[in-house]
Parts: sequence; structure tokens; C-alpha cells
Amino acid sequence: RFLWCFFFYIPDVNSFAARTNTCGELRAAHIGQEVTLCGWIQYQRQGLFLVLRDFQGLTQIIIPQDEAHSHVRKLLSNAPVESVVRVTGIVSSRPPGQENLKMPTGDIEVKVETAEVLNFCKKLPFEIKDFIKKSEALRMQYRYLDLRSSQLQHNLRLRSQVVMRMREYLCNHHGFVDVETPTLFKRTPGGAKEFLVPSREVGKFYSLPQSPQQFKQLLMIGGLDRYFQVARCYRDEGSRPDRQPEFTQIDIEMSFVDQAGIQRLIEGLLQYSWPEERGPITTPFPSMTYEEALADYGTDKPDTRFGMKIMDISDTLRRLDIGFVQNVLSYPHSTAKAICIPRGVRYLKNKDLESLKAAAKSQFNQCSALGSLRLESADLLEAAGMVLRDPAALHFLWVVDFPLFLPKEENPSELESAHHPFTAPHPSDTNLLYSDPTKVRSQHYDLVLNGSEIGGGSIRIHNAEQQRFVLEKVLKEDSEVLSHLLEALEFGAPPHGGIALGAITSSEFLLVVLVLQN
Amino acid sequence: RFLWCFFFYIPDVNSFAARTNTCGELRAAHIGQEVTLCGWIQYQRQGLFLVLRDFQGLTQIIIPQDEAHSHVRKLLSNAPVESVVRVTGIVSSRPPGQENLKMPTGDIEVKVETAEVLNFCKKLPFEIKDFIKKSEALRMQYRYLDLRSSQLQHNLRLRSQVVMRMREYLCNHHGFVDVETPTLFKRTPGGAKEFLVPSREVGKFYSLPQSPQQFKQLLMIGGLDRYFQVARCYRDEGSRPDRQPEFTQIDIEMSFVDQAGIQRLIEGLLQYSWPEERGPITTPFPSMTYEEALADYGTDKPDTRFGMKIMDISDTLRRLDIGFVQNVLSYPHSTAKAICIPRGVRYLKNKDLESLKAAAKSQFNQCSALGSLRLESADLLEAAGMVLRDPAALHFLWVVDFPLFLPKEENPSELESAHHPFTAPHPSDTNLLYSDPTKVRSQHYDLVLNGSEIGGGSIRIHNAEQQRFVLEKVLKEDSEVLSHLLEALEFGAPPHGGIALGAITSSEFLLVVLVLQN
Repeated sequence: RFLWCFFFYIPDVNSFAARTNTCGELRAAHIGQEVTLCGWIQYQRQGLFLVLRDFQGLTQIIIPQDEAHSHVRKLLSNAPVESVVRVTGIVSSRPPGQENLKMPTGDIEVKVETAEVLNFCKKLPFEIKDFIKKSEALRMQYRYLDLRSSQLQHNLRLRSQVVMRMREYLCNHHGFVDVETPTLFKRTPGGAKEFLVPSREVGKFYSLPQSPQQFKQLLMIGGLDRYFQVARCYRDEGSRPDRQPEFTQIDIEMSFVDQAGIQRLIEGLLQYSWPEERGPITTPFPSMTYEEALADYGTDKPDTRFGMKIMDISDTLRRLDIGFVQNVLSYPHSTAKAICIPRGVRYLKNKDLESLKAAAKSQFNQCSALGSLRLESADLLEAAGMVLRDPAALHFLWVVDFPLFLPKEENPSELESAHHPFTAPHPSDTNLLYSDPTKVRSQHYDLVLNGSEIGGGSIRIHNAEQQRFVLEKVLKEDSEVLSHLLEALEFGAPPHGGIALGAITSSEFLLVVLVLQN
Repeated sequence: RFLWCFFFYIPDVNSFAARTNTCGELRAAHIGQEVTLCGWIQYQRQGLFLVLRDFQGLTQIIIPQDEAHSHVRKLLSNAPVESVVRVTGIVSSRPPGQENLKMPTGDIEVKVETAEVLNFCKKLPFEIKDFIKKSEALRMQYRYLDLRSSQLQHNLRLRSQVVMRMREYLCNHHGFVDVETPTLFKRTPGGAKEFLVPSREVGKFYSLPQSPQQFKQLLMIGGLDRYFQVARCYRDEGSRPDRQPEFTQIDIEMSFVDQAGIQRLIEGLLQYSWPEERGPITTPFPSMTYEEALADYGTDKPDTRFGMKIMDISDTLRRLDIGFVQNVLSYPHSTAKAICIPRGVRYLKNKDLESLKAAAKSQFNQCSALGSLRLESADLLEAAGMVLRDPAALHFLWVVDFPLFLPKEENPSELESAHHPFTAPHPSDTNLLYSDPTKVRSQHYDLVLNGSEIGGGSIRIHNAEQQRFVLEKVLKEDSEVLSHLLEALEFGAPPHGGIALGAITSSEFLLVVLVLQN
């Protein structure tokens, strides 16, 4: 089906600009050329030479010491570090023995002919050098200075390139349509707390959406077939290191698709867009049911980079003649579970065991206790020097067959959606929806990487009657607030499903100017 | 510099889906193949045949009349129009004479073997046929039904493709970095009214930005070199047909660039991404000063598709011996101007002239009067049958050398920025900034297409002292609210400039569910 031609390109980063080359670009092959560079003074020494920096690297600039260049020498030696200059000169080979092998431009230097100081820099709050450690607070206050570091320059560029590859895969290879959905919307019932935006009508508010969920379903009903968006979403839940009030997700929805279809799509997407430097990805990703995940790992997002699975040792213990154990295990639904810690005797100290015991006690009677004990044991083992998890390993995992509904925490006799009310029931469990909804599995799927959830989605309900039944009879919600969606489902909604990948925070660009004001 | 290989592709729109082909895809070459199609019933006739539709087109489905297919026949004939079905069958040639040349799939039909109704459709509020006219209100209420029309499907797809081409040009060809800037920001002084978002701290608010202007300047100060973003912007100014509270702009900023650099970048961008169906674009675009535009066309966004320039006839009139004219022209700054209407005698009726006279009177003493009279005359000529403006013509135009400051409307002795306070003065006029700021031209440029402004930008002030002088001494503003930007300019800000193209509204996706609520 595909008519492809492999192609490659080097973006022209000097087009339209007042330079001929970047500071990371010149090599021995350029020797003899006249070049113009623009950049920041990274270092300078007594009017003899300076190191010029831009986003691509560093170049050494030699200042001739003869009378004819005295003006240039004076100009450049008066410019403080981080001043912005433009220099024109000839690319020359460094004197033998003075080459710098650690520097990509280390074979050459530029003998400056003319120079211009484009902007002076006043005394800096910290030095722009990768090896200088600064406090997080200072980095945030002067975010634009921190951005000049090679690490942040790399991060911002890598993010841009990965998202561009994702767009190519979705839009150019698979015919997805990038649609921008509104962010000034009406309130969605349930879910996270939403930001409200007062409108021009007194007492009326817009709401900033947590996700374009309803919009993308309406697009499918509109026959769009394949939608994606790099979507800005909002949650008014305060800032945490892993969660910000605004964040971005790769939002995808398609029609006439099943769970496996979305999974293969996402595997292909990640394979195509994954940065080469992070190694290749193997597909298809393994899959695990929610039930298995809970039983073996004590969590719905298992870190499968290491074993130490949870084992049921009830039967073994029952055979032992220990009174209090027998007693406990005689209660209905009682089980005894264990995690076998490899070489634990050697690696774990008494204080480690005490901290595990304390953690176990504090989580008494919570089913996730064993899952977090497993992770804590792993941390302790690694702190003690065991190599348990390869930091370069990529363990992708689909977790499937979640329950469709869960008992409400505040009132366990009532049910709430495990994810959201638009999730379709598992095809084998559709009849249970009407007889025993607590037993219904859903067509929700989570994508887990190394123990972190990096995406989640589902096949949606496309039948109006079923959607109304879920809202009114199972969830006992007022379906009136979703009447527009219920009505839309009645006008020929196709089967559809999707996923949201992310949430990629835009944290690289937090700025201290983001202070609230009256 | 470029290593290119031309490539082309056909996106695989059937990947991961429960169909083999779309409804717009099958041709004579497919005859004999078994195919599975999914789509909406566009038309059906008594269980004999139906026309199936999806985003790509229409396919005729023949229902065999033999006993073996009675189940399929019954199923399909019970499905109302706009129900969603999946059919599997054999592609066959249409009987001779029954080919439909107007239909891309008109050579074939699919003889259905098995079928499934995926969703039934209840009675529609209007028919989904391009030739059926519906009221705007009804189209908005059932936006998802309206989206099924071939026109809206085309619009959404074209927009997605054009934006994708822009991304390729900027990111892949010219090394721009796509950076997402925050939308929960602090208030910007001046400019349009901003939406406020109450925060979790009582009495403190975020503000939704009108543009990422400050962020992109800080990114340049951070050494990012080349930034772009398809940026969502907000203006709390109520809805108008050409302006919505939220809109999108292609937002661009680069370092070490001058006005001509940005102009050539944008010309290349439009040339690369312009849809083929709208014809090629010739570059460079012509340029006109603000002064010329006002003198010749009476507006700063001239429609140059036709002549009828404004002429100064003061000298001619002064030579005539007409008392009241001589009298009027004796006042200082008095001029007489005229528009010559080609073949006006033939095309314009008395009532047309009366309406022009009335319009002139109502705009008495406004300098834009002649500009709008020129456009009104053109409208009248075209209404009378003259072909004046080729609807396919693309007249791009740069308007440059705007004044940097304008007298405030409410108090003409004070000055305000003609665009925004970050705009740099024209290099030739820098000294005038300190002596006579009213005379300073700016490095602002507007891009005009057929008389509409489609973009605007400028070279920015990169010198902290100059920026402070403009804010404090010329505009008499409190520079404290911009202290973060002023400080940033002191730490080695590179010369930089940019542009915003758009505002592309997301109007294709207005939904009636966007009703405000308490």
C-alpha cells in the first residue's frame, strides 16, 4: 500500500539569519573559509581569545594581537561573559598540539577580522556552565539563563523532534486528522476539579477541560474517522512534581477499531518516534490482565523490570502447625502472601527490615500494601548495591480487563466508573451489565512503562441505550448534563475507541514570572 | 546544504481498522476482490441496493435477491438512512451502461455477502446531503451531523495538512523548535481584555494570554535560536464572525534576524504549505510603506487586486476658478482627493452614487473614508456585473514602516504603541526616539492578502535601556509589571524578531454544546 522513499535531511539552521554557521558546526573541512558566527561569550582571556557559544556548541575565536586589529581586540575584551557578539573571520587550523579532541570543533579556531557586540551582559546570578550546580529556586527564577545549558537545549529540541515524528506517523502514514478542539467548554460531570473561567455574562462560567474526551467522540460521530491532537488539558489540583495544573497529552481516537487495533497503532507510534539514542523498542508489547497484575505485583502498573512476584503461600502455611497462623487463615477470604527477596539476607540490614515492617504495618489491610513493599524492597536492595533494574531497559506493558465499575469509597453500596462513564464493557460481559454490573470487565487499557502509567484509553460505548443505562441505572447520575452526547449517539455513532498518551508536562518551560497576581 | 530526496506517500487510512477499503477507494482494478467496507447508509432502495458513505466517498452496494441472502437483505432494508453498517462482499463491474462517470467509484459496485448493522440511526433533523440547505442554527446544534458533509470533511483535512506542511518546513527544513508555552499566565499590561481564571488562592487569578509574546522573547534570551508554536490564544472580547474568544496563531520567533529575514522565511513557509488546489504563490511578495498605503489606498491593509488608487487633485482644483473650492483649499493641510471609477458612468446607477455620497458624509473627516469608499465602489461595480477582482487571485503584500507610536484616542497629547511596546524602532529613526518619538517609524510588518491582514510581527527591542526608555519615558507606563522582561534583557538578549500568522479560528468545530452554564 505504501509508496515510500527513504529520505534524510539536515535542517538549515542558518537560513534567514545574520550568520554563516553555528558555533557547533565548523570542522577541518572549513579551514580557509570566511565565516560569520553569532553567539554568547562563554569564556574569554585578556583579549587573546574567547569561546563563543550557541545552541549547537562552542567555537574558539582567536583575536589577532597586531595594531590593525586593536579596535576589535578592545571591543571584545570589554565585553563581559554572556554578552552577545557577532564575529567574522577566517577558519584556521589550530597550532599542532593545541587541538581539543573533546570539542567537536576542536580542530579549528576562527581568526576574527571584524566583530560587533550585539548586547552586553550584566553580572550573572550564576555561571552558564554545565558543571556549575545551582539551586532549583535560582534556576526557576532565571529560567531563561538555565535554558542556555546544553542539557535543557537538548531536552527542548528532543521533545520537539519526538512530537514531530509522532505527527508524521499519525498524519502522513496513517491518515489521522489533527483537529483543534475548544478549551473554553462547559463543565463535565465527575472527574478532576476543573478551572472555571468567568464569562461576560454575570454568573456564567466556562470550564477548562481535563481532556477533549467528549469532543473527540463527537468527531467520530461526525465521521472524521481518525483524529489526533497534541492537546492541552487542565486540572485544578495544585502543582506536584509529576502533575501540573496544565499539561499536554497525545490524544487519539479512531472509528471501526477494536482494542487490539489501538494497541498495535500505539506500538507502531512509539517505535517510529522513539529517540534513537534511547535504543530500539520491541513490539508487540506484552499484555497482562488487571487481575494478574494485582495478584502478581500488587498494583495495576507493575514494574516488570524485575521479578520478586507476590506468591500465595496460604496452603503451605495451613500445612504447618502454627496456632495463630491457622487461626487467621480460618477466616473466609483469608490468604497469606509473600515476596521472596533474592539474596535478601546478604543485602538487607536489620534497619532495612525494620523499615519494611513499619511500612507493612502502616498499610495494614490495603490491597496495594504488597505492591509497595515489593518496590520498597527493590529500592533497599539497589541502595545496598544490588543491580536489579537496568536503567536503560524499556519494559512496556499493556494492562487490560479492568473492572468497569468500582464501589464508591465513601459508600461501597454505590458504584462509580473505574475510569470514565464512556468506557465500553468487555464484549464477553455485556449481559452482566444488566444482571451484575460489579462483575463486568471493561475495554479499558493502560500502557505502563517500567512501572509508570504513560497512557490509557478504551473502546467507547457507541450505543445510546447502553450509555443511558450506564449513566442512569448503574451510576445513578443525572444524564441530562450529557444529553448532547446521548442524542449524538442516536444519530449513527460508529464503533470507536482511543487513547491518551502523556501527560507530557511542559515543565521544561516553567518560568518564575508565573506568579499569581490580583 | 540540503540533502533531499523527494518522496511521496499515500497514507494507509485502513490500517488497524475493521475494513479493507474506504468507500472512496474502489476502482475497476479491484474487481473480483473481497472487500469489507464500513460506513453510513447514504441512500437505500427497497432492499435492492444501498449507497454507503464514509469520509472518502460513496460506494454502491448491491444486495443479492436470492434466498441465500434473505437475512442480509432483511437486515439492511430495516436499517434507516445514516445507520452505520459493515458489509463484506465482492467488487464487481457495473452492468454496461450503468456506470456513473460522476462518481469516482462509478465503475464498480460491491455485491454484499455478509453485513452487520453497527448502529441504527433515528430520524434525522436534516438530510446529510450536500445539496440540502440547512439553517446556520440547525447546523450548529447538530454540528456532528454537519461534519459528515464532504465540504466540512474536506476543510478539516485541508487545515490539518496545511499545518503539517508548515511544521515540516519550520521544524524539518529550518531547525525551528516547537515549544509549548503555558496558558495559565499572569496578566499582561495593555492590549485586549484577558480571560481571568481564579486560582486556589483566594483573590489571586491566572490570566489566559492573548499571545505567547513574552514567552517567545524569553526563549530567545534563553538561546533557543528558533521557536515556533501553533499557539492557542484568548481574547475576552465577545464573539464576532471573524473573531472568537479563543483562536490559533502560527507563532514564530528567531534570533539574529532582520525584517527581510523574517519576510523571506514567511514567503517560503507559505509557498511550501499552500494547498496545490489554490494555485502557486509567487515570491518575494511586494512591499509598501504605511505612508504609501494610506496615501494610495486609504488603509493600512490595501486590496491590491484592483487599481482605483486615491489621487491628489488639489493642484488641479486650485487652477480652476471655483470660489468655494478655492476657499476650502486655502486652509492649511487642505487637500482634495479623488478616486477615478473606471467605466463608472456605464456601471453605476443614480442610487449607487447616492449611497456612495451618503457613505462619504457619514465618514466625514476620517482619514479611512477614501479607503472604504474605494472598496464600496468596487463592490457596487461588481454588483453591476463588472469583473474587477479575480476571486482566484492571491495578492500578498508586506506593509512596512508603520509609526512606532500613535497619539492616544482619548488624550492625543499622550502616546501609545501602534502595535506593542516590544517593537523596535526603525534603525534610521533610533535617534528620533529621544528627540521626537512621534516621528519614529517601527520595524513592524504586516502581511496582507487581498485586503485582509493575515499576519503581523516585528523586530523586537533587545536592549534593556531602550526598552525601559520606551516604557517609562515615552509610554509613561509602570515598568514594574514587566520587570522580569527588563531584567532578562540585561543578561545577554540576542537581537530577535518574529511574527504571528493567523488568527486561524477553530470555527469548523464550534459546537452547540458550548453553552455557558452556572
